[in-house]
Amino acid sequence: MMENEWIDWLRERLPEPASIDVGLGDDAAVLAAAEADERTIVTTDLLMDQVHFKLGEHDPREIGYKALAVNLSDVAAMAAEPTAAFVSIAVPRSCGEASESGSGCEPGGAKPGGLELAKELYEGFLPLAEKYNVAIAGGDTNLWDGPLVISMTLLGRVGDRGPLLRSGAKVGDQLLVTGSLGGSILGRHLRPEPRVHEALLLHGKYELHAGLDCSDGLLLDTFRMCQESGAGAVIDLEAVPVSADAETLTRECNDGITALEHALGDGEDFELILAVPLGEAERMLREQPLDRPLIRVGQIVAERGLWCEVDGQREALSPRGYEHQ
Amino acid sequence: MMENEWIDWLRERLPEPASIDVGLGDDAAVLAAAEADERTIVTTDLLMDQVHFKLGEHDPREIGYKALAVNLSDVAAMAAEPTAAFVSIAVPRSCGEASESGSGCEPGGAKPGGLELAKELYEGFLPLAEKYNVAIAGGDTNLWDGPLVISMTLLGRVGDRGPLLRSGAKVGDQLLVTGSLGGSILGRHLRPEPRVHEALLLHGKYELHAGLDCSDGLLLDTFRMCQESGAGAVIDLEAVPVSADAETLTRECNDGITALEHALGDGEDFELILAVPLGEAERMLREQPLDRPLIRVGQIVAERGLWCEVDGQREALSPRGYEHQ
Repeated sequence: MMENEWIDWLRERLPEPASIDVGLGDDAAVLAAAEADERTIVTTDLLMDQVHFKLGEHDPREIGYKALAVNLSDVAAMAAEPTAAFVSIAVPRSCGEASESGSGCEPGGAKPGGLELAKELYEGFLPLAEKYNVAIAGGDTNLWDGPLVISMTLLGRVGDRGPLLRSGAKVGDQLLVTGSLGGSILGRHLRPEPRVHEALLLHGKYELHAGLDCSDGLLLDTFRMCQESGAGAVIDLEAVPVSADAETLTRECNDGITALEHALGDGEDFELILAVPLGEAERMLREQPLDRPLIRVGQIVAERGLWCEVDGQREALSPRGYEHQ
Repeated sequence: MMENEWIDWLRERLPEPASIDVGLGDDAAVLAAAEADERTIVTTDLLMDQVHFKLGEHDPREIGYKALAVNLSDVAAMAAEPTAAFVSIAVPRSCGEASESGSGCEPGGAKPGGLELAKELYEGFLPLAEKYNVAIAGGDTNLWDGPLVISMTLLGRVGDRGPLLRSGAKVGDQLLVTGSLGGSILGRHLRPEPRVHEALLLHGKYELHAGLDCSDGLLLDTFRMCQESGAGAVIDLEAVPVSADAETLTRECNDGITALEHALGDGEDFELILAVPLGEAERMLREQPLDRPLIRVGQIVAERGLWCEVDGQREALSPRGYEHQ
């Protein structure tokens, strides 16, 4: 909710100097460079205890892993190659030393703190950094009496095809996703696998018009792509790949939310959503170049908003999804 | 205290991949690039309420200004040109809405919060960003029940002379500073003027061996330069330029700290400390190319540590200064 109002305020206030090719509103910023294929992209996230994770409930290694993984997913969404990360952490003092409430420590002292906590966070993301060849190139670590805060900034390099933007979708483009959706809350949300290699492969081999990662739900993220592209989308509800987790959630929670609704609205799947011209989409679906399925879920249309078709009639879909408070 | 132990731990754990020319331990990281004069430097700071500033006591516009200014000073310390900033903020909800302690709100509700606070922070640094032609290219703003946290990441461009590092000082180099020191606590620390233009001018016109910004005090920062350069320094105590603020502090506080000690140990002056070969230093002192004085304060020697000379005898100086908790 706040996010849109805030971004509107920022867009009015901030000039976009020549040093920036793509500013606010995409998955990452693109900095200008003398050579277009040497452009740097930058994405940053601020993750706070009790807002984005719960220290004491989640393992610090999982928190660290996820902090880097979601930024890698933003780099993947630009079809860029991640290069260097900058990690700043505000670390609650160990519970024994905490001098005030607000330290994130519980009375029993069950939460870790201090330098040990910082090390466990690093142990969570260092293997992921190594896997994707990302240098941890700097940062700032400080103890305090407040809750854990992690600031992660990730840089990436754009190839000769340039960055994959949200704003390039054209009427008639097909919408493809890189895997099934919904129910990540059952566990996948803690260890998302960013689609870095998939994005680089697809962007290098095919003509993609637009893309982003599905962090806040298929409907909401598709809506964002449409907004940036000045278009709308028809979602083919029967084609949306519903994950086994979404089925389990519906079967076991009995909360009146269907598995399809989970697939449409749940966040943190981190699959790619791509807008691809028709012929190229057909080729991609036929060739299936990834280790995982490429699935068509709809198409871009001129009418703004999100739509589905029921008995041949177009009906509006609400762009629900998970927005961080 | 923590900082050194933590950096040692990190240095052991982190590989330094080929994508990084300069990693931990300098004022900023330097990323490799195909063209050496297109290298990007990155510096980042995490600033927390009650650790680096006090919300309710300091104006949010001052806090915002300073958050960008200290990062600009790190870019100046590398003699690089700042290009883009990424600003993430964890914003306490407005005091009326605060649901828990630890929000940074006081009982009287005197502290600002919410989106208004975020806007005031921006109003603090936007004019500074404009002055130095820095694009605010991205970030992440979130409300929460914790205290204010600001993460500022600043990118810069290195010119054809490369970055000015801490590690390049050579025995016989003269130590120069760009202004008088001490007593910034009387007010200057709230509105430091980063020496960006001065650093670019000096690095372009003269042969500088090493440099950094004086953020934690002349002695401590000179000691850091010496450590990175594998050398020591003799400080010419009579030559150290003592600011009027340092004199005032000594005269009015009567705390037994001399004005010279303030000039040696106080932090947050953000003047440049430069190591320059003898002949070049003489030329700089003669030409005085800046709007502000260039002053010689000592020289680099082979003996590790910090020294002064008393009656022709070399005596050890303790690298005191202000280290953030």
